[in-house]
Amino acid sequence: MKKFHLAFAWAVALLLGVSAAFAADKPKYIFLFIGDGMSIPQRMMAEEFNMRLNGEGLSINSFPYQVMTTTRSTNSFITDSAASGTAIACGEKTENGTIGMDSSKTRNLVSTAEVARDAGKKVGIITSVTINHATPAAFYGHNPSRGNGYELGLDLIKSNFDFFGGGGVSEHGDGDADIYDLAAQAGYTVLHDPQDLLKLKPGCGKVLAVQKDGALPYAIDDPDGFRIADYLRKAVELLEDDPDGFFIMTEGGKIDWMCHANDAGTTMREVIDMDKAVKVAEEFAAQHPDETLIVVTGDHETGGLTLGFADTGYNSYIERLQYQKCSQDEFSGKLREVANDYEGVKSAITEWFGLKFDGEDDDPMQLTDAEKNEIRDAYDRSGEDHKEISRVTHTVVKIFDNKAGLGWTSGAHTALPVNTSAKGVGADLFKGMIDNTDVSKKLKSLIL
Amino acid sequence: MKKFHLAFAWAVALLLGVSAAFAADKPKYIFLFIGDGMSIPQRMMAEEFNMRLNGEGLSINSFPYQVMTTTRSTNSFITDSAASGTAIACGEKTENGTIGMDSSKTRNLVSTAEVARDAGKKVGIITSVTINHATPAAFYGHNPSRGNGYELGLDLIKSNFDFFGGGGVSEHGDGDADIYDLAAQAGYTVLHDPQDLLKLKPGCGKVLAVQKDGALPYAIDDPDGFRIADYLRKAVELLEDDPDGFFIMTEGGKIDWMCHANDAGTTMREVIDMDKAVKVAEEFAAQHPDETLIVVTGDHETGGLTLGFADTGYNSYIERLQYQKCSQDEFSGKLREVANDYEGVKSAITEWFGLKFDGEDDDPMQLTDAEKNEIRDAYDRSGEDHKEISRVTHTVVKIFDNKAGLGWTSGAHTALPVNTSAKGVGADLFKGMIDNTDVSKKLKSLIL
Repeated sequence: MKKFHLAFAWAVALLLGVSAAFAADKPKYIFLFIGDGMSIPQRMMAEEFNMRLNGEGLSINSFPYQVMTTTRSTNSFITDSAASGTAIACGEKTENGTIGMDSSKTRNLVSTAEVARDAGKKVGIITSVTINHATPAAFYGHNPSRGNGYELGLDLIKSNFDFFGGGGVSEHGDGDADIYDLAAQAGYTVLHDPQDLLKLKPGCGKVLAVQKDGALPYAIDDPDGFRIADYLRKAVELLEDDPDGFFIMTEGGKIDWMCHANDAGTTMREVIDMDKAVKVAEEFAAQHPDETLIVVTGDHETGGLTLGFADTGYNSYIERLQYQKCSQDEFSGKLREVANDYEGVKSAITEWFGLKFDGEDDDPMQLTDAEKNEIRDAYDRSGEDHKEISRVTHTVVKIFDNKAGLGWTSGAHTALPVNTSAKGVGADLFKGMIDNTDVSKKLKSLIL
Repeated sequence: MKKFHLAFAWAVALLLGVSAAFAADKPKYIFLFIGDGMSIPQRMMAEEFNMRLNGEGLSINSFPYQVMTTTRSTNSFITDSAASGTAIACGEKTENGTIGMDSSKTRNLVSTAEVARDAGKKVGIITSVTINHATPAAFYGHNPSRGNGYELGLDLIKSNFDFFGGGGVSEHGDGDADIYDLAAQAGYTVLHDPQDLLKLKPGCGKVLAVQKDGALPYAIDDPDGFRIADYLRKAVELLEDDPDGFFIMTEGGKIDWMCHANDAGTTMREVIDMDKAVKVAEEFAAQHPDETLIVVTGDHETGGLTLGFADTGYNSYIERLQYQKCSQDEFSGKLREVANDYEGVKSAITEWFGLKFDGEDDDPMQLTDAEKNEIRDAYDRSGEDHKEISRVTHTVVKIFDNKAGLGWTSGAHTALPVNTSAKGVGADLFKGMIDNTDVSKKLKSLIL
């Protein structure tokens, strides 16, 4: 009986192998999402918060294919965003700091976006940080240093990609050689107001729809703003008509920033903000189920975030992140306004983080005497005219995160693997344990 | 053309679906490994250390199927080993502290080991900690509290499983009601010396081959001892003849203990010690490739271990763990011998951890003045007759781990998902993102 099973299995396997060459359709539409600094703890923190407050997790965690992904660069166990962006974009590892070139910095690599462009697909690049920041730049740029923002801006124009959206071009220059002017000369419709973007129609040609300067605001500070989900929705509308489909990379770039700052509440909302962009892709995929692939990855972990903390032991209070009402950056601004009056500082702490100086003893948000002293001490060390009032911010956020049962160990990145999620046509390629270079290799194999 | 593809794909899928019922052979031999406290950081730390020193990673990380696994219990985002052991063993979640019962503590659950036994398979349970500790107990015990060691010992006997090996029965009692006596009366060959175990031959009947008391020593302190790999090798020899095969659960139980103590060097060597046991299973699988499944999981993360640390930024120095020559526990014993002489304490620190008080300034293992002060301060606070000399131990280990570029945030567990790895017959069931209860569900489906 067993022999019969085996023979039958072999026949089926053979048939399946033959059929794979015929049947494995390639996705016409490819969405790639990168959460900068988004590893497993960041995803699970947001998942648990959403579960507790809204009864549902993140879209990205419900994808049918989930695969652990290692991130090292050629010169470090701990990658930076340039090397990991290059690995994810181009499928080859390089040194930290390098964009779209090999580690000898003599050879340009080819990104999935470039392959898609050359295969006739429309290409879009969207990010919440500056559009020539390391991660987005890795899809069109080739430079030994991520620091060369202007040159990366020139590479952006040269890419001839169809859509750029989100944060502005940093170091865009001025006068004749301004990147925006050069882009316009190269045929891009350049606009800085999302309302102008919304007016564009399919067939409008190449678009550079980014803020004049800087990154998008944090989601927690700008809940009703024009977010990456909105840029993506418009990009899809403008690009979908192409008979060869599109490749769109969308980055949640500021997850990383607030992990560097060890601010869990702001980080968590950036993850959810990116998940909303993923939902736009899912809605599109629901309309084009046999033609769409969605892949979500992170480029590295940032901050050494842990879903537990010494003082809270086996308990977790992630729901307490709801009491944080603004980002760390915004909060320092608010403190500056009241810096000369410690009572005002205390009020601001209660208003924006829910931490209480005079609550009931059994109120979990009540500060202990030690915590109050720590905050007061930071205030006293905030210098002449309290110019260093951000010391208070950092102390408050640390205490706040710890009360939520969360710890951090670093202001830099760590080597924890990330999670890559895939859904749709070709998603079954994402299994086992992969390296970040495999993301590009697999995507290229689905285009070429 | 596309329609033809689709029709063909459907036909193949249908054929495949039908064939699955026929062709999916079930493994005759099932190995389950559980690293207690072993989540992704613990695995990757050991992987990177082994890569740097020996040029090869861990076996468990090379398995073809790797799947992220959530661990929450019914009452906490952060599970304990009783609830996670129960989930992994029985496929149902329960409250922290509970062994093999549902969270109402009124209903006994059924473990994969019990299912295997009832299906005619031989069953083995091996652990480096006490054999009635939470994780192994979850495979045969049913008790509202993990703390009831004696009752769990009685459950062990009642299980009628074929092989128990490793650490002793805790709270085994004495006299007539001693668990060892009761086990012998119930037909077990009870032995405490591994040399006696090695003499046993297949057909010898049920075996309880455990230390008289306590857990096995740490691998770092006992590199040439009789380890879980050795127990497993013998268990395989004794159990493999059964026509229905076997189910053997092997736990690396002390990974967790040294994560609680935030001792990376000892933790890492415990992970490698478990990987060696996995290699025993792989050797067996190489002889029985069409009949064997190996699954490796962890029950939770412990310690909030991060593969990066504030002071070392983007650098990682995991290879420095090689300078640690004994466990934290052993080191406290060594310090006690020289506790009255601070120079002796300093020498011991240099001897066992490679940290230098008078090295060259550019020696990475040279202690900074601040670190020297921290150690001296811990020594000065070690109390009358230096009874609390372990304060020095903890300070030394913290400094040492940080110099290796590693951070910890907790003395308890955290909610980071773990990684489940699978290889062999049925391994393809392990994909996507799963819950710890799914490990049991999948294994049971491969037995029943």
